Amino acid sequence: LGMASLQAVRQIVKSMKHTPIFEKCLQHIHVVSAGDGKIKCTMPVMEEHLNMNKTMHGGLTATLVDSVSSWAFATTKEAKFGVSIDINVTYLTAAKQGETITITSEVLKQGRTIGFANVDIHNEAGNLVATGRHTKFMASAAY
Amino acid sequence: LGMASLQAVRQIVKSMKHTPIFEKCLQHIHVVSAGDGKIKCTMPVMEEHLNMNKTMHGGLTATLVDSVSSWAFATTKEAKFGVSIDINVTYLTAAKQGETITITSEVLKQGRTIGFANVDIHNEAGNLVATGRHTKFMASAAY
Amino acid sequence: LGMASLQAVRQIVKSMKHTPIFEKCLQHIHVVSAGDGKIKCTMPVMEEHLNMNKTMHGGLTATLVDSVSSWAFATTKEAKFGVSIDINVTYLTAAKQGETITITSEVLKQGRTIGFANVDIHNEAGNLVATGRHTKFMASAAY
Amino acid sequence: LGMASLQAVRQIVKSMKHTPIFEKCLQHIHVVSAGDGKIKCTMPVMEEHLNMNKTMHGGLTATLVDSVSSWAFATTKEAKFGVSIDINVTYLTAAKQGETITITSEVLKQGRTIGFANVDIHNEAGNLVATGRHTKFMASAAY
Repeated sequence: LGMASLQAVRQIVKSMKHTPIFEKCLQHIHVVSAGDGKIKCTMPVMEEHLNMNKTMHGGLTATLVDSVSSWAFATTKEAKFGVSIDINVTYLTAAKQGETITITSEVLKQGRTIGFANVDIHNEAGNLVATGRHTKFMASAAY
Repeated sequence: LGMASLQAVRQIVKSMKHTPIFEKCLQHIHVVSAGDGKIKCTMPVMEEHLNMNKTMHGGLTATLVDSVSSWAFATTKEAKFGVSIDINVTYLTAAKQGETITITSEVLKQGRTIGFANVDIHNEAGNLVATGRHTKFMASAAY
Repeated sequence: LGMASLQAVRQIVKSMKHTPIFEKCLQHIHVVSAGDGKIKCTMPVMEEHLNMNKTMHGGLTATLVDSVSSWAFATTKEAKFGVSIDINVTYLTAAKQGETITITSEVLKQGRTIGFANVDIHNEAGNLVATGRHTKFMASAAY
Repeated sequence: LGMASLQAVRQIVKSMKHTPIFEKCLQHIHVVSAGDGKIKCTMPVMEEHLNMNKTMHGGLTATLVDSVSSWAFATTKEAKFGVSIDINVTYLTAAKQGETITITSEVLKQGRTIGFANVDIHNEAGNLVATGRHTKFMASAAY
C-alpha cells in the first residue's frame, strides 16, 4: 500500500512537471517516500529558486509547504486535494544554492471537511531551514 | 519623494525581472504606486501562476506576500531589506487565469531590527483573494 | 439594525462576564460599537492582564483576537459562532498597565462554512500593539 | 543539569502562580520534565479554561503556546526570556472539561537575537488538540 502510494505521488509530481503551471518551479523535486499521510522529498536548491540575497526565496519555501503537504494529503485513505485556507511559514536558516534540502510533511488530521498538515525543511547539515503548517478545506463544494 | 521611491521600486522590480532567480515568476507585475512604506501593484493571473485546480497557486500568493512587502520596506526612510522570519497567508477567494489582481502592502512598523508589514490581494470585483503578514529581521548581522 | 447588533453583542459580553469561564479575563472590556461584521472595543490593561515583564500577556492578546473577532462574526447576517481553526498574532508594541487599548475587528469573509476576520489592537498613542487573524469553521457539524 | 533545569522551571512556574498576573490562569499546570530546550507539562481542563461552547478557550490554548514555549527557552544554555514577535495556533480537536491535556514544547532554534519554538497539545486519547509556533525577540534592547 505504501509503495502504491509512493508510485501514485510520483505520478502526480511527474505530470505536474510537464505542465506550464506554477508547480513547474518544483520540477527538480524527488519524492523519496510517501504513504499514510507522510511524505519525504529532496530538492537541490538551484539558481531559479533564489532571492536577491542568493538564498532560497521565501516564496519558494512557502510553495514547498503548500505543495508537499498537498501531496501528503493525497496519500491518506481519503485522498483528497481541496483548497488552502491558511498557510504559515517560519524561516530559521537560509538555504544556499547547491545544497540539497529535505522536505518532510505529515498530515496531522484529516477531518470531514478540514485537513491539517505540517512541513519541515532541513538542510544537509540537519538544521531546520523552515517549518510551516497548512490548513485546507477538503470538501468539494465552495467554502 | 514619493515619486522617487516609486522610480526606485520600479528599478528594483525591473532588475529582478531580468535575472534567472525565483522572483522572475513576478515578471508581469506592475508597480502602480510606492512610497512611505506603502505600495500598490497589479498583476494579471497567467497560466504560469496556476495550480492543478486552474486557480492561482498558493505558493505564488505567498511569494506576492513576501516580495511585495519587501519592496514596501524598501520605500521607508530606513530602506532596509533583511530576511524573512515569519510569513502567514489566509486564502479567501480563488483567483482565476485572466483576472488582474491588485496587491497592496503597508509597513506596519519598521523597528530597529524587526520589520512588520501586511499584504492584501484583491480581485477585479474588489473581493479579498488573500491576506497575509510578513515579519522580517532587518539588521545586517545573522539572527 | 446596527444599534440592535450593538445591544445584542453587549448582552453576549455581559452574560460572559458573569460566568466562571475563561472569557472572564475580558470582564473589563467595553463594546463601543458593533454591527455588520465590525466591532470596536476598549479595555484598560490591568494587573491581571500582565506577564512577568509587566506588559500585556501575549496570551491575553490572543484571547482578544479570538473573542472580539467571534463577537464580530455574531454581528453578521449569518450570526454564527463556530469553532476556531487558525489564529495568528503579530506583536508590535508592548502595552503597559494603566493604558486603555482599542480593539477593532472586521469580518473579512463569512462563507458557507468558513469565516475569516482580522483584529487590530492599538494603544492610546495610536500605535499598533498587535494584529492578528482568526479563521473559524462555522457549520454546526464537526469539522 | 536536566534536573536542575526542571527545578528552575518549576520555581518559575510556582512563583508565577502566586502573582495576580495573567499567567495565574495556568496555576493548575504541572511541569513533568524540562531541560535542554524541551519541556513537558500536564494540565487538567477546568471550568475556568472554557469558552461558551464548554470546550477549552482558544485564548487559553494560545496562552499555553506562549508561556510553555517561553519556559522551554529558559532551559537552553542561553536561558533568555525575550518578547513575543509572532504566535500562531492551529486548532484540531476540542478539549473538554475534566480532561488532562499534555503540553510539549521544543526550542527549534535559539539564535543570537531570535528564538523559535513549537508547541503541541495532546488530549488523553493521544489526539492533537492544537499545535502552534512562537517566535521571540531575545535580545535585551527594544526591537
